[in-house]
Amino acid sequence: MNQTTTLDWLNTPIATLNTQTQQAAQTRQSQLTKPPGSLGRLEEIAIQLAALQGTTQPSVQRVQITIFAGDHGIACEGVSAFPQSVTSQMIKNFAQGGGAINVLARTLNAQLEIINLGTVHDTAALTNVKHYHLGQGTANFLYEPAMSMQQLLQALNVGREVADQAKCNKMQLSIGGEMGIGNTTSATALASILLNTQPVHLTGPGTGLDENGIAHKISIIEHALALHNPNINTPIEALCCVGGFEIAALTGAYIRGAQLGLPMLIDGFISAVAALTAEHVSPGCKRWFIYSHRSSEPGHNIILQALNATPLIDLNMRLGEGSGAAVSVSLLRMACALHNEMATFAEAQVSTKNQSE
Amino acid sequence: MNQTTTLDWLNTPIATLNTQTQQAAQTRQSQLTKPPGSLGRLEEIAIQLAALQGTTQPSVQRVQITIFAGDHGIACEGVSAFPQSVTSQMIKNFAQGGGAINVLARTLNAQLEIINLGTVHDTAALTNVKHYHLGQGTANFLYEPAMSMQQLLQALNVGREVADQAKCNKMQLSIGGEMGIGNTTSATALASILLNTQPVHLTGPGTGLDENGIAHKISIIEHALALHNPNINTPIEALCCVGGFEIAALTGAYIRGAQLGLPMLIDGFISAVAALTAEHVSPGCKRWFIYSHRSSEPGHNIILQALNATPLIDLNMRLGEGSGAAVSVSLLRMACALHNEMATFAEAQVSTKNQSE
Repeated sequence: MNQTTTLDWLNTPIATLNTQTQQAAQTRQSQLTKPPGSLGRLEEIAIQLAALQGTTQPSVQRVQITIFAGDHGIACEGVSAFPQSVTSQMIKNFAQGGGAINVLARTLNAQLEIINLGTVHDTAALTNVKHYHLGQGTANFLYEPAMSMQQLLQALNVGREVADQAKCNKMQLSIGGEMGIGNTTSATALASILLNTQPVHLTGPGTGLDENGIAHKISIIEHALALHNPNINTPIEALCCVGGFEIAALTGAYIRGAQLGLPMLIDGFISAVAALTAEHVSPGCKRWFIYSHRSSEPGHNIILQALNATPLIDLNMRLGEGSGAAVSVSLLRMACALHNEMATFAEAQVSTKNQSE
Repeated sequence: MNQTTTLDWLNTPIATLNTQTQQAAQTRQSQLTKPPGSLGRLEEIAIQLAALQGTTQPSVQRVQITIFAGDHGIACEGVSAFPQSVTSQMIKNFAQGGGAINVLARTLNAQLEIINLGTVHDTAALTNVKHYHLGQGTANFLYEPAMSMQQLLQALNVGREVADQAKCNKMQLSIGGEMGIGNTTSATALASILLNTQPVHLTGPGTGLDENGIAHKISIIEHALALHNPNINTPIEALCCVGGFEIAALTGAYIRGAQLGLPMLIDGFISAVAALTAEHVSPGCKRWFIYSHRSSEPGHNIILQALNATPLIDLNMRLGEGSGAAVSVSLLRMACALHNEMATFAEAQVSTKNQSE
């Protein structure tokens, strides 16, 4: 692994959008054989992609999906409906092609990469998984910072490398996903700090806690924040104290992607918290984000509001793994096909609005 | 054309759903490697398709899209933002492959059929369009019934034949779309009668009327209803008085599709009004409907409520042509792929919820 001992790269400027291709795409949309605006969000997406990709013919055929996985020390506090061993079991499931994201990636003909940043149970035997051994999961942030600064630097750097590789491979769209039992607790704690909000407003059932489970989760997060808040002055410190390996890696990937000008499709709650963290660390990152779906995890709405984001779909999904983003890719492809292939009024000799017969 | 002189076929019983495959699909969903319910609507859709298709391995690879087009006499009252000639111009555009629905059908590898039921301008020269010459558009229903009973019978029968053909061709999903300048006025009048609602609650901008245009459209519909309401006792009479050729054909297709057990994906406002009409004519039809999208045409919400329908997507689309349904097909395909291809907890040796490690 290319060790990084500094955060300096986080200060690289964010890439700028191409307003010329954006304007040209806007003009083209008004010329296509349909009432102006009648394709709704699909028009907006095509125009946004034209700006992000710097072309009047946007395309999302080449899609990279990267799943960042890691364990969380906080899981031992009973904050998840599933046992911690599921993190590594699901990594194995991904490696064997049986997870939801495997099915979606195959359907989309997207490149899928699985990265294990550090789990309690060893998965090193899985050859089609990239392994970074940052630790056997994070520390339990109820009592101590989740990560050392060195672990955080490494995790951010894994994300950076993923974005670099995606750009190098000329990917037209990048999706980050996550897997890690306990990670809604980590993400909720992180978002509570970044938004200066009480955990009670952001905490939800995750993989399926009942009412008592949620109350316990809130209490754990409140106690953790009471411990860490006095020591946190920056978003990076927040990420270090209560984040997770996979959340930090996602954050690094988003920041680097925005520096490189890589269009990124954001998945659900955890991913949105990482996106929010990226935006807090490097303001302007969010120009490179497209928001895929509204999760049924209740805190997601608050995160989306903070990002001024309106996702494309709302299907009551709450799986993570990049699954909501992957499902949305088909809509982006439809938007591009309509934009690129529909006839114009002039080509088809169709009268425009209010034009006399 | 196979002339039909009777409405008797409308009374054929609606097909029943397969509750065994539905139950088996429900069970399988609970065994897949994800928290129960975490794929949200995609789980529901897979289970619904299992019930509709009578298989535990639902699929929507074979999709039929039929666009029913026709002109409306009411268009001469200035109720549309576009001139009436656009109906036939758009039929030509569809024939040449330049419309939104052409692009979507190609993207989906779906079969697309264009049917002209009767327009003011002749399109007979277009060889890849099916022509039924029911009239040069409907009559102006501000003054007289839109259709004769014979025209209505013919239009319903065109829809019947389309459904018969789709079933014969073993289509796994059928989509009806429409094109006809003035048809939101016709659909709004029809829905006002069926739901016993004032037109002001259902009338919207259609292809792009401004506030004054909408007020005028409401007034036209109100005057028309004052003329026809005393003579209308059945949904068929309502369809005859204020419907359109394409709306009647859609209604016939929906009724026949439900009789044959054909899963049908409903598009936007006009299509939903035809679906509502089908349900009023033949109660139980709606068991065979899947609702694709929520149109930005405001009256659509009321129609959806009346059908107890929750569409999959809400992208501010309002184009018609079956476009919202076509865009949604990709989500149905994802739902099927996830259902059929994901590993189960047992296959992947992943622990289930609350299971000890």
